[in-house]
Amino acid sequence: MTDKTDLMENYRKAYGNGIGFGQRPALIMIDFVRAYFDPECELYADVDDALASALRIREAARANGVPVIYTNVTYHPDGSDGGRFFQKAKPLHNFIRGNPMGNWPEGLEVGDDELVISKQYPSAFFGTSLASTLTTWGIDTLIHTGLSTSGCVRATCVDCCSHGFIPIIAREGVGDRHEAPHESNLFDMNAKYGDVVGEQEILDYLQTMKQKS
Amino acid sequence: MTDKTDLMENYRKAYGNGIGFGQRPALIMIDFVRAYFDPECELYADVDDALASALRIREAARANGVPVIYTNVTYHPDGSDGGRFFQKAKPLHNFIRGNPMGNWPEGLEVGDDELVISKQYPSAFFGTSLASTLTTWGIDTLIHTGLSTSGCVRATCVDCCSHGFIPIIAREGVGDRHEAPHESNLFDMNAKYGDVVGEQEILDYLQTMKQKS
Amino acid sequence: MTDKTDLMENYRKAYGNGIGFGQRPALIMIDFVRAYFDPECELYADVDDALASALRIREAARANGVPVIYTNVTYHPDGSDGGRFFQKAKPLHNFIRGNPMGNWPEGLEVGDDELVISKQYPSAFFGTSLASTLTTWGIDTLIHTGLSTSGCVRATCVDCCSHGFIPIIAREGVGDRHEAPHESNLFDMNAKYGDVVGEQEILDYLQTMKQKS
Amino acid sequence: MTDKTDLMENYRKAYGNGIGFGQRPALIMIDFVRAYFDPECELYADVDDALASALRIREAARANGVPVIYTNVTYHPDGSDGGRFFQKAKPLHNFIRGNPMGNWPEGLEVGDDELVISKQYPSAFFGTSLASTLTTWGIDTLIHTGLSTSGCVRATCVDCCSHGFIPIIAREGVGDRHEAPHESNLFDMNAKYGDVVGEQEILDYLQTMKQKS
Repeated sequence: MTDKTDLMENYRKAYGNGIGFGQRPALIMIDFVRAYFDPECELYADVDDALASALRIREAARANGVPVIYTNVTYHPDGSDGGRFFQKAKPLHNFIRGNPMGNWPEGLEVGDDELVISKQYPSAFFGTSLASTLTTWGIDTLIHTGLSTSGCVRATCVDCCSHGFIPIIAREGVGDRHEAPHESNLFDMNAKYGDVVGEQEILDYLQTMKQKS
Repeated sequence: MTDKTDLMENYRKAYGNGIGFGQRPALIMIDFVRAYFDPECELYADVDDALASALRIREAARANGVPVIYTNVTYHPDGSDGGRFFQKAKPLHNFIRGNPMGNWPEGLEVGDDELVISKQYPSAFFGTSLASTLTTWGIDTLIHTGLSTSGCVRATCVDCCSHGFIPIIAREGVGDRHEAPHESNLFDMNAKYGDVVGEQEILDYLQTMKQKS
Repeated sequence: MTDKTDLMENYRKAYGNGIGFGQRPALIMIDFVRAYFDPECELYADVDDALASALRIREAARANGVPVIYTNVTYHPDGSDGGRFFQKAKPLHNFIRGNPMGNWPEGLEVGDDELVISKQYPSAFFGTSLASTLTTWGIDTLIHTGLSTSGCVRATCVDCCSHGFIPIIAREGVGDRHEAPHESNLFDMNAKYGDVVGEQEILDYLQTMKQKS
Repeated sequence: MTDKTDLMENYRKAYGNGIGFGQRPALIMIDFVRAYFDPECELYADVDDALASALRIREAARANGVPVIYTNVTYHPDGSDGGRFFQKAKPLHNFIRGNPMGNWPEGLEVGDDELVISKQYPSAFFGTSLASTLTTWGIDTLIHTGLSTSGCVRATCVDCCSHGFIPIIAREGVGDRHEAPHESNLFDMNAKYGDVVGEQEILDYLQTMKQKS
């Protein structure tokens, strides 16, 4: 391993190729739940800006016929369906069913025709039927927003790529409790799995969907 | 997000709980292939030390009846089975079948009774029957060595946790092309998915297996 | 293909080996929901006997510390998360969330410490975190009861075997709308994937668990 | 359960809806290996007619730009990667790597641009990256040929449906060692998971692909 050369220079020799947007996108809003917005909660992450950006992207998606999918996390009261993840990551007790920390924050009302996927693991694809739904719908691109960059966003992005969909990560629409893991995970995702793209470019792309729908 | 507080202090409030070793371990050696050891290859990562550490761990595993599994990456000559990952990550062309960059480096001879799993995606669990094999064998703990920390090791660790096995990451037995993603991914894995443990502690643990086998 | 020789004789040359009970069982009760018990519903299957047998097995499981898991089927009101299965199998509209046909029948009250897994596809393992839960719990054997033999029981049994668990199918605890697919699927499962075992033998086996727990 | 009413009449009330062909098909040829064609092998199934039909369908697929995928089954010499399936189904020893019973029969030469997927379990989707490949390619329909109807074809069909692809089962292009499980599994697949379609109708459909490619 090197620590002498510049990281960007080191990776430029190998990684960072842009894969580009596909033809049929969907938007996913990963784990935007109260726990991350409540300063009293140990999961508080100060990510109002990420939610605000994600809501602007959602508005464009809805206006252009692009489907929107939400995830949350739910566990049995004794955590027995949380596996090794629940044993390791102590703050997950906030997502035991019935705990208000797992509810949507204000402003995130789910539309009647939109899908909510409840999961037990970091990736929105793991232990859920998300990939099957996207495949049935003919989706080829999944725009990622949500929380947190280094946790469920990263895990979802890797699985998205592995399942055969193009991951687009909305730079301003994802957030983390600390800048360091936020930035290092954006770097990793953009290097190898998907494209990290600014909000405006995503809004422009969604606008081109209108004609197709 | 914050960039003001110390990262360790910020995370200590929520993450980093140790899950501990289980009762029945296996050792995985992820993508230890020539590409990462050949200075002419774009994937060269200067990770001889990681291999040396992994081989010491392997010796202890073999001596104590702990099964050893290897992974490599293989693609059809036209990359048609590489999906979005092959489209995004250009250096993967080194793993088209028949390319010597995908071969084992010297010192990594696989035992006749050991298993090699060929994969197309970052995680050793994705698109393979690894989880089924570990479950059949009654394994509860998977000791991770291999390359690279920010790529296939991280992806394997997240899936390991999600599939119900305890991920132990051998600190000296994993490596990356650059210190920055190496360290940030060790941090993420240890915070939420598994325990990052030093080589000596793993050797000591493996020694305790002898009586059981 | 032959239609001349006796089926049993033909298969005896190749299949039907008994795999035997494992050491740590769990019980699954697959899709025991009102739809199959209500004579007005198109899914009515006249399977009161199967439920009665499954409840006797459940009683023995509970008495001996063997965990019990239930499945049901739920869809978004527009069926958008039902994929190709919902498009093909028309009676699945009975399982749109809120439809009382998806509720438990009388006598199937779920215990507070028991797990309910909601699925969209035939197999209890597909698109759910069931395998991860069983692996975390250290389960090696899954006793199958439920409905219907030729549908969700068969699909669950095949996935159970593939995921690394021993499938035991309770002969009297599974049922179907017609004897022909019921019997042909019991035959197929017993030939290749798991052991079809009578209720009394399962009760006797569960009794042996008491000492271990 | 009933055994009084006619089976077809009983099912007509609920199942058997045709899902229809999609827009972008692929052809899969499941486990057409020597074991099933060699009268000395315990797996011999007398299915030359199924192979002949599948080869006619393959010719039409190739002529019209429809991709062709093959599966075989391979195990480590000690069966250690075969899980519970290898423990249960004794004839699987024929597929230990190096055994000629796992080779292609005459007439099945794989094209250089065609994909071979080696699997350990009944379903071509289980423990393989098939679903990811089909999704990346934009496939929505998978035409099933191969062996055996009650084993790997049935398991692949159920997973195909669950993964979000339309299963089309080629009636003359699949076969089994005995007529009884062959017919009962065609019945089950057609009732709930996909459409069982005659060879000529598939040839006609493939012919319509030419313009698109």
